[in-house]
Amino acid sequence: VSSPTLLQRFEQGDIRALSRIISHVENEDDGYLELLSHLYRQPRQAVRIGLTGPPGAGKSTLVDGVSRILLEAGEDISVIAVDPSSPFTGGALLGDRVRFKEETQGGRHYFRSLASRGSSGGLSRATDNIALTLDGFGFDLVLIETVGVGQVELDIVDNCDIVVVVLVPESGDTVQTLKAGLTEIADIFVVNKSDRPGADRIVTDLTTMLALRRSQGTHPSVSQTAGETPTLPVIATDAVHGTNLAELVATFNSLLSRKKDNGEFDARRRKQMKRKVSQLLQQRFLTETLQKVASKGDVDRAIESILVGEDDPYSTADRLFEQINLARQSC
Amino acid sequence: VSSPTLLQRFEQGDIRALSRIISHVENEDDGYLELLSHLYRQPRQAVRIGLTGPPGAGKSTLVDGVSRILLEAGEDISVIAVDPSSPFTGGALLGDRVRFKEETQGGRHYFRSLASRGSSGGLSRATDNIALTLDGFGFDLVLIETVGVGQVELDIVDNCDIVVVVLVPESGDTVQTLKAGLTEIADIFVVNKSDRPGADRIVTDLTTMLALRRSQGTHPSVSQTAGETPTLPVIATDAVHGTNLAELVATFNSLLSRKKDNGEFDARRRKQMKRKVSQLLQQRFLTETLQKVASKGDVDRAIESILVGEDDPYSTADRLFEQINLARQSC
Repeated sequence: VSSPTLLQRFEQGDIRALSRIISHVENEDDGYLELLSHLYRQPRQAVRIGLTGPPGAGKSTLVDGVSRILLEAGEDISVIAVDPSSPFTGGALLGDRVRFKEETQGGRHYFRSLASRGSSGGLSRATDNIALTLDGFGFDLVLIETVGVGQVELDIVDNCDIVVVVLVPESGDTVQTLKAGLTEIADIFVVNKSDRPGADRIVTDLTTMLALRRSQGTHPSVSQTAGETPTLPVIATDAVHGTNLAELVATFNSLLSRKKDNGEFDARRRKQMKRKVSQLLQQRFLTETLQKVASKGDVDRAIESILVGEDDPYSTADRLFEQINLARQSC
Repeated sequence: VSSPTLLQRFEQGDIRALSRIISHVENEDDGYLELLSHLYRQPRQAVRIGLTGPPGAGKSTLVDGVSRILLEAGEDISVIAVDPSSPFTGGALLGDRVRFKEETQGGRHYFRSLASRGSSGGLSRATDNIALTLDGFGFDLVLIETVGVGQVELDIVDNCDIVVVVLVPESGDTVQTLKAGLTEIADIFVVNKSDRPGADRIVTDLTTMLALRRSQGTHPSVSQTAGETPTLPVIATDAVHGTNLAELVATFNSLLSRKKDNGEFDARRRKQMKRKVSQLLQQRFLTETLQKVASKGDVDRAIESILVGEDDPYSTADRLFEQINLARQSC
């Protein structure tokens, strides 16, 4: 992976080198951690925007439309399309995705699809690492689109700077949607396919609900100290016909400016990085400390006791934890 | 939660007490860990069968049909229907699920639906804990059905003794399916809606592929030491008309006998319990050890360094881990 030639070509802006490096990162090939460490220490500037929502909400078309506007403005845009459902679909949903031609006028464009593999945590980690790679390559924006619905998708977009939840008039009962905790993750709501019946209704409902929540002060991303507490934007788009896509892009920009000014942007990145370091620390704890205990057979014996109903996992974990503590203290 | 009256009523077989206790466990109310510890130390006998597959594969009908056969044979059957996609569907898919009447002849029956909440890990944990509760109540079988597709569902059924992957003729390219790693988790493949065109084809394709994989010895659950390495069963059912459901039940039983005889049953439970204890240990490590380091501001300083590109999360995690080690050694 860390072959100087490949990395040099990557740093010179070679798209094929980028693709190969992304594959190494996705597959977690030997040396990928060194590569990521290197990328973390390079200048980075890319903003990550995550889009999630139910199937059929037109997210791909929306992402393509937004990309086109930004590309024409000369920005370098990358897209990661993640399909966590692919154990069954085999990623076919992404196969027929229209890709931009290299000859598109304006900025550079890169599209990468990412199908499910391994654990759900693995998919979120791979997406995060690929986004870092695209950032290191020099893209201004990484659009992360999740094809499908569910917690895995929410975990993935949780690594973004801005999260867009895309709904359609058919998404129905707005109250239900809000109950489900989507407002806790969303920065922008898009009601796509706004030419369909019911679009006005869902926009009104969403706006009312969000205003209500704001007055109750329950939205975590709304700063309570600021003089004004802006409500979440709700934007009606019709991606197929390009309606309001420019407004959506303008909203990205204004939201980004505001978040950078009031410190929310940095605060979120800090929180994300803290989570990442914690996860890595846990991994090291697991592989090193726990294996030492395990090698003594204590874990295996404890598991047998639980399985025959003489112990339980909670007491076992407590006991093993104390044991590790004591082992360390008798140095 | 640990009110003696409620637990006593639970232990006397009161279904309403069971429902209340399940709610406590699902919501992780105060005292739920003590309750789970108690349940782990009780006699347990329930077998867990997990069913997963794409939407529209007829899993609910299949689960109902299988339940009916087993109930008529006098077994006590419980069902947990999990819908990880509910951030968007609001769990509506489960709302119109046909429930058995209490008056069903034969064994006892209990149905519980579980919609998504919190993190994806939380849903898998809740399902596991509810299954333990149902086991403690005395059910012979816990059928765990996941409504939808994706990694979260695979994580959930990974806590089962037997995993059934339900496909339909429309599921299409079998090779694709196998590539996606479903064979690594499946113990039985069911091709439901076998009255539809293409059913024979998908059964043949699956059988061929599985035989091929078996000869390559790549299936992890196939014992390499045994004289015969049985291939995974592929069963064509038509749940709506009850076709082959009795055969499916017979397959459950024979598979279970074989797994108990050859040690696979115990080995899987041991592995699951080891994972559970590891996760609990990690949690304790995170909440206790890491917080001590964090309180000194080291983590915060490290994160600032990463964010400005002067450090990376991997080196940081390594350094913090060594620091924790050193702190302990200077006791």
